[in-house]
Amino acid sequence: MSVPKVVILGAGYGGLMTAKGLAKELGYNEAEITLVNENKYHYITTKLHEPAAGTAHPDHARVSIPSVINTKRINFIQDRVSAIKLNEQEVQLENGEPLKYDYLVIGLGSAPETFGIKGLLENAFFIRNINSVRQIREHMEYMFSRYASEKKEELITIVVGGAGFTGIEYVGELVDRMPELCHDYDVPMEKVRIVNVEAAPTVLPGFDKELVDYAVKYLEGKGVEFLVNTPIEECTKEGVILKGGQEIKAATVVWTGGVRGNKLVEESGIETMRGRVKVDEQLRAPGYENVFILGDSSLVFNGERPYPPTAQISTQQGQYLGKQLAKVIRGGQITEPFVYKPKGTVASLGRREAIGVVGNKKMTGGSAAFMKKVIDLRWLFLLGGVGLALRKGKL
Amino acid sequence: MSVPKVVILGAGYGGLMTAKGLAKELGYNEAEITLVNENKYHYITTKLHEPAAGTAHPDHARVSIPSVINTKRINFIQDRVSAIKLNEQEVQLENGEPLKYDYLVIGLGSAPETFGIKGLLENAFFIRNINSVRQIREHMEYMFSRYASEKKEELITIVVGGAGFTGIEYVGELVDRMPELCHDYDVPMEKVRIVNVEAAPTVLPGFDKELVDYAVKYLEGKGVEFLVNTPIEECTKEGVILKGGQEIKAATVVWTGGVRGNKLVEESGIETMRGRVKVDEQLRAPGYENVFILGDSSLVFNGERPYPPTAQISTQQGQYLGKQLAKVIRGGQITEPFVYKPKGTVASLGRREAIGVVGNKKMTGGSAAFMKKVIDLRWLFLLGGVGLALRKGKL
Repeated sequence: MSVPKVVILGAGYGGLMTAKGLAKELGYNEAEITLVNENKYHYITTKLHEPAAGTAHPDHARVSIPSVINTKRINFIQDRVSAIKLNEQEVQLENGEPLKYDYLVIGLGSAPETFGIKGLLENAFFIRNINSVRQIREHMEYMFSRYASEKKEELITIVVGGAGFTGIEYVGELVDRMPELCHDYDVPMEKVRIVNVEAAPTVLPGFDKELVDYAVKYLEGKGVEFLVNTPIEECTKEGVILKGGQEIKAATVVWTGGVRGNKLVEESGIETMRGRVKVDEQLRAPGYENVFILGDSSLVFNGERPYPPTAQISTQQGQYLGKQLAKVIRGGQITEPFVYKPKGTVASLGRREAIGVVGNKKMTGGSAAFMKKVIDLRWLFLLGGVGLALRKGKL
Repeated sequence: MSVPKVVILGAGYGGLMTAKGLAKELGYNEAEITLVNENKYHYITTKLHEPAAGTAHPDHARVSIPSVINTKRINFIQDRVSAIKLNEQEVQLENGEPLKYDYLVIGLGSAPETFGIKGLLENAFFIRNINSVRQIREHMEYMFSRYASEKKEELITIVVGGAGFTGIEYVGELVDRMPELCHDYDVPMEKVRIVNVEAAPTVLPGFDKELVDYAVKYLEGKGVEFLVNTPIEECTKEGVILKGGQEIKAATVVWTGGVRGNKLVEESGIETMRGRVKVDEQLRAPGYENVFILGDSSLVFNGERPYPPTAQISTQQGQYLGKQLAKVIRGGQITEPFVYKPKGTVASLGRREAIGVVGNKKMTGGSAAFMKKVIDLRWLFLLGGVGLALRKGKL
């Protein structure tokens, strides 16, 4: 007798939590669990702004997958998904044999949303994964290294497109990095420009105004220039052209302005909005009883508006699905809907500063920065227990 | 009554030793000593291959000039020389007022010799100074950082043109760096190519054959490919084209194939051979009693062939000139000629390996590596005493 095959695509927050949950809930021989991921490691999206700025080694933002799963229960495959064939109940891989499934969990993350801005995909960098942030750091350092002989100010100008969470956290990290970077490359600090460009009328749209003001004041005090209400019209090899025609010459342009769902989901035939799927209350894809979608490729609504894609919601989805899917596999049914419980939000502004709302409490400065570290530590606990938290965490 | 003005151009090995020697020999009011250098720091040419490969921070290969000279006796000007006007006894600077001199010491170092190879100046990197080696390192790391997503092998191919001392020492350093570099950028070590291309029939032309064989065997064992008897015909944006037409695609090409004198010397009207001046026995430029030339811009003959330009000969020239010029300034004459006393030669092959000849003794392996460090330390002692040696040196 064959056991049900569960295939989980993506070892992000949602996929990993689902896999770990299933492995915990189900006994041997109740299901065959396969986890597919492009890299051998899980990366901690909420920390990517650190290696992107060079304030932390990329290893601090990633965790080896086999080290945090029970490899006797979960079959881990390192490969890239090339297609999802819903009608054949099959997943095609770039290198390996196709995988048949009885239950499919899709947690393939996001892709940059460029809103049709010309030249962005070709010329900008993205805070997206370990590979992309290493490139940002190395590109920036290479540009800085050229300044001492070429003396062109665009070499030490960094434009960050988007002043959402990722944009602000990255800018905060850059500010922390600058003294060391300028020392190492003999660059006069006062010549460096960090320009954060945002199309919306405010930095951190939707966030508490008092906290936004705190963040802007802090970062402006460190020399960051904010341009709000300022859409980018085009990104070129030389920099960005703003709406109205003004050009900012910058050797490094990093786009953090938004994400969309993974195109494999779109290509699978499931109905999407910007590549994201409006899942039902049980995280199912519309029309497919046995296909679940988690994380950045899923849309969960809070009244009329979807929740923004975050590590927090993905983690809760994964925890939910691990438990519920185990019931289904045992022949039962999912009885309770997924309900997102926001625990709060903290945005770091470098190592010692942050802003946040936890419960109804607003926080700034050192206590918010501490809270951010506690949140990061909590994920390490969930992933790999105390050992991992001690190895990778920092307070 | 005005005192004689001595202007020293360049704070390399020769210039610094001259300045320090004069300041030591002469009492107050015997001469006005001015030292001009483009940077506020002296760089240790014999260590530049380390920051170029990324095995050491650039700060280990430079020393603040004001920290190693008596600034009450030596007037240090940080500026770039724009012209030497021998007939007006004047040196023009890029930013400051022209400097009049009674005695001029030129130690302006070298420029890369490209032997007319097409595209080399535009597309290759050079191990030349702090700025240029920072660029090599950062460029190489940027290329490595792109490999994990782009998977193009030229990104992790490094061509080193020239298998003289600098080329071999740089290759040795690269070999040391590779394990860490490959780990940091998720590059499979076995895919990295380090190709050392030399037009002469052998690696380290002129060096003891047994030691050359040792070096080649050691470096080949670490995966380095040597192509001797192989002139580079052209350097392009994509790599190098060898004589015969074979192309090596490489994102990083570093040229170490030779140096020529500084073009300011050529432009001054002094007769030169490849920008270098055949000085007389007292290091004077032909036809100018009061102009001395040191280091890479000078040619000192050993029978029919000139000594190769090294830190060792420059240092001895500076030590000689400091003493002798003091006599001249006091109204005396230089009585003894400059005689170069070669103390031996050691080429490092990374941190723990080296080859060398000291006196008549050939050395390899750990003892040669130790000797190399002793030689580096000796320069730090000469420059800044025990304190500097302790701060910057390593054994």
